Amino acid sequence: MDVYTRLKELGLALPKAPAKGGVYAPVKEFGQNLVYVSGCGPTLDTAVAGKLGRDFTVEEGQQCARNCMLNLLAVLEAGIGDLNLIKNCVKILVLVAGTDTFYQQPAVANGASSLLVELFGEAVGAPSRSAIGVNALPGNIPVEVEGLFEIKGM
Amino acid sequence: MDVYTRLKELGLALPKAPAKGGVYAPVKEFGQNLVYVSGCGPTLDTAVAGKLGRDFTVEEGQQCARNCMLNLLAVLEAGIGDLNLIKNCVKILVLVAGTDTFYQQPAVANGASSLLVELFGEAVGAPSRSAIGVNALPGNIPVEVEGLFEIKGM
Amino acid sequence: MDVYTRLKELGLALPKAPAKGGVYAPVKEFGQNLVYVSGCGPTLDTAVAGKLGRDFTVEEGQQCARNCMLNLLAVLEAGIGDLNLIKNCVKILVLVAGTDTFYQQPAVANGASSLLVELFGEAVGAPSRSAIGVNALPGNIPVEVEGLFEIKGM
Repeated sequence: MDVYTRLKELGLALPKAPAKGGVYAPVKEFGQNLVYVSGCGPTLDTAVAGKLGRDFTVEEGQQCARNCMLNLLAVLEAGIGDLNLIKNCVKILVLVAGTDTFYQQPAVANGASSLLVELFGEAVGAPSRSAIGVNALPGNIPVEVEGLFEIKGM
Repeated sequence: MDVYTRLKELGLALPKAPAKGGVYAPVKEFGQNLVYVSGCGPTLDTAVAGKLGRDFTVEEGQQCARNCMLNLLAVLEAGIGDLNLIKNCVKILVLVAGTDTFYQQPAVANGASSLLVELFGEAVGAPSRSAIGVNALPGNIPVEVEGLFEIKGM
Repeated sequence: MDVYTRLKELGLALPKAPAKGGVYAPVKEFGQNLVYVSGCGPTLDTAVAGKLGRDFTVEEGQQCARNCMLNLLAVLEAGIGDLNLIKNCVKILVLVAGTDTFYQQPAVANGASSLLVELFGEAVGAPSRSAIGVNALPGNIPVEVEGLFEIKGM
């Protein structure tokens, strides 16, 4: 199924790809049709700042992770031109800024990986994943997600 | 040498692959015979919780890292069917939950990478590696390990 | 342009590749001309220890990240023999040890990625990147950088 039709069915719209926050490539193609997407934060229209275990509930954290993935997909689309070219969601790293006693990183990370499954189905969409806690992320964002994808040969 | 013979020689048995803790693929094949294994914790029979620099000695941390790798290999076997298909242990990321003044992450991480070298020999088994400290991991586990492997073409 | 000429133009010299700090491969080739370089710290001649947000300014952190990249390139050269074989700087992960309220990881990480762009130009040199904060790194180093590179077929 067309990814853009599926996005519409889910009531979602891709945001504008966020501006680059440093010296790097937002999307880098390499090898045989592989693409790395640099770490993306959860900010859509208004800035989101704070930490899990103190400033956000797990549910709010999940929504942040989902928004990170929306931003990541917008960045990926800007890089490869069409999200229907995605052949395999290979790997994501989900970083959750939290207090020293916040231990529900996997629940938060589900917000990012679930969106991929909803869009691409289990076989293509479910990525391998690590979900880890950290004490601080850029600009005090609560969640950051990077991704590795395989795209269709062109 | 057969990996399972080598495991037996080391007095080790593969645990049952741990249950998935969220929405993701425990093992994801991609590209030309590459496989990512999602982050694995150290729990074998009984749960392990706490942090380095406070709740565990470095030696206990090494054992935790070794158990993470046993779990990772069990997950990988469940995904590809036979650990003798491993051609190259490419990369591991070892995350060590610790206090702000615990700085011996490499010693802890050796518990994971040493097992690969013991099983597969230096050339195949020694992976590239980053060992980093974090303030918290899922479920308060002290160590988490993810891995990238290259497998034999089938 | 020859990488070594460019290094000289920038007034830089490759350090001696730092000694391995554990059981791992400093450089691991895999797949089709891909190479992972294990996490490198900023120590050149004298040890550097401490955290961002307390012991170092952002500018000092950038210099640390640049020195991490110099060490990483020295390690990569020791592994593949010639830095002119680099075809694509694919991905770096920049880990910044800092206080719980240090949020300028991207500015610090620019020290590492800028050096790649200065040496290899934007298209080849700018890597995809994640810049994250952590509470502690090995030996209390303030910055650690790992990298994925694509090299020319031989």
